[in-house]
Amino acid sequence: MKTIKIAIAGAGNIGRALLDAIYEQADAFEQKHGVRLRVTGVCNSRGGLLDTAGLSPKKIAEQSAFTPDLAGRNFVQQVDADILVEAGPSDYITGEPGLSYADAAIARGLHVIFISKGAMLLHGTQLLEKARKQGVAIKYRCATASGLPAIDLLERAFANATIEKIEGVLTGTTSFILDKMQSQRCSLTEALTEAQALGMTEPDPTNDLNGKDTACKLLIIANTAFRTQLTLADMSVSGIESVSPEDIATACAEGKTPRLIGSVARTTSGINAAVQLQYLNNTDTLARLNARDKALRIFTREFGETILAGGSSSRDATIAAAMEDLAQIVRL
Amino acid sequence: MKTIKIAIAGAGNIGRALLDAIYEQADAFEQKHGVRLRVTGVCNSRGGLLDTAGLSPKKIAEQSAFTPDLAGRNFVQQVDADILVEAGPSDYITGEPGLSYADAAIARGLHVIFISKGAMLLHGTQLLEKARKQGVAIKYRCATASGLPAIDLLERAFANATIEKIEGVLTGTTSFILDKMQSQRCSLTEALTEAQALGMTEPDPTNDLNGKDTACKLLIIANTAFRTQLTLADMSVSGIESVSPEDIATACAEGKTPRLIGSVARTTSGINAAVQLQYLNNTDTLARLNARDKALRIFTREFGETILAGGSSSRDATIAAAMEDLAQIVRL
Repeated sequence: MKTIKIAIAGAGNIGRALLDAIYEQADAFEQKHGVRLRVTGVCNSRGGLLDTAGLSPKKIAEQSAFTPDLAGRNFVQQVDADILVEAGPSDYITGEPGLSYADAAIARGLHVIFISKGAMLLHGTQLLEKARKQGVAIKYRCATASGLPAIDLLERAFANATIEKIEGVLTGTTSFILDKMQSQRCSLTEALTEAQALGMTEPDPTNDLNGKDTACKLLIIANTAFRTQLTLADMSVSGIESVSPEDIATACAEGKTPRLIGSVARTTSGINAAVQLQYLNNTDTLARLNARDKALRIFTREFGETILAGGSSSRDATIAAAMEDLAQIVRL
Repeated sequence: MKTIKIAIAGAGNIGRALLDAIYEQADAFEQKHGVRLRVTGVCNSRGGLLDTAGLSPKKIAEQSAFTPDLAGRNFVQQVDADILVEAGPSDYITGEPGLSYADAAIARGLHVIFISKGAMLLHGTQLLEKARKQGVAIKYRCATASGLPAIDLLERAFANATIEKIEGVLTGTTSFILDKMQSQRCSLTEALTEAQALGMTEPDPTNDLNGKDTACKLLIIANTAFRTQLTLADMSVSGIESVSPEDIATACAEGKTPRLIGSVARTTSGINAAVQLQYLNNTDTLARLNARDKALRIFTREFGETILAGGSSSRDATIAAAMEDLAQIVRL
């Protein structure tokens, strides 16, 4: 039985939940995929812990046992691992710390699984090229709508197809808010308060409302689909912050459904990407899907319209998506 | 530049359309995937043609040039190829001729792409196991709702997930007929005639109407998802042949939409699969999708509900799906 050794960069909620999942699912994973998973190193920004024989969740919980400065490149260079899972925070300006972890890991010949968005958002094309040269894989399903296997579909099922346009709803929160404003004729603030009470928003909902969260996910999807490297500066991004109950009542009376839509298309002048509030016909599939779902509509010359929808946002779904990425790498 | 040599078993409409597509797309394929495609052999049930330097559509069109008896195992044993594409007719009783072609190809170490359903329907598990032992791939996206990348999604994106249930609409024709009967209050025969006039049915629509086409596609999906080998005998299969305009009017008055649904679920007593006419609530996503689309709803413990919809049925979509399978194999 082959053992796959995993290093986890990030020992916060996600990093620890992933470690738990690997231990809980080790036997089932072995049965399904024929390999044994072993976590041989974990670090946070200040230090880390290594054990080639395997670290237990208990050891990780005692962070006082972490060796100071065993973090960053130092951690990646010392850990005995086949795969690095990057489970740190997302920084949309620098792509750090994910970028440095991935760079160091690829240089050492480790496969990389991204959980945060920053590095793929800013340096996806370069990272994929470096990985290709080193003969390692980068998986980043978690970095864009974890629950929805958008990247898998684009990379695998439509790898040869001519993708013309992709559009979709990439945060469930905005659809929920817009529907509440419509059904209860309430203000954005009231609808947001309800979404927050249901735990549907990030602690700070700004990036959901202003379209930036959608833009970041869309860019990663767009760069995969069109093999390019767009940045946030190339996009027109607006959100739902200034929508009023009256706007929504008017749209509703006209048989329309408001949705925050991210879209990217190949045009004669290049790849155009935008995020904006759109009023869809009620008969439009994107208007008819469950409001809490994320949804993508992919137009290809060969297959017409394909819809992918679902993808609850939760820590569990993110961890499950990372486990799928692990499964794909061990089967390479 | 690596050259990938392809043998095509089947020189009917599909086989010849695939050959055309390979020639037309060769340059674009090379740019995208870094390999050159070359068709080195084609055969039908009576004979075949070999040329290691590459066969042109023109050569194939002159079927009088085919060498008699260069078919079946004889063809597979003589052709110089990396991949065999099986493009023959579908036989749901014997799985032939696809089964023999695939068996011979796998034994010689060729990858196999199925276009017909029969062999995977009847012997999928055994074929996949033989292929695994030989270190070759079997791709069979075309064998189940070509346009809809159901197998890719199940094999890749949900390879580690616990699949609980899959249900869906696997022929667009039945939805079209049911919707016509509802909107025009017409008989099944009248709606069928309209579908036939629009070219939406097979020459013989029996298997669409009696649920067998749905059952065959569902079985291949089910056997992939649940890693089992169900047969048609394990399924309860009924169709829409006996539905009346009155049945549909009643359902419509109750806020329901009729759909021919295939479903397969893991239960305490094993894997249960069935095809039957169901009356879905109008709010159900499967009821709300475009009637011409195929659609699958996949329930996994980890990701909840995921919807995949689209997949126009056409020869072009089948050929495009086969080209995706080619792209996946050359990237292995």
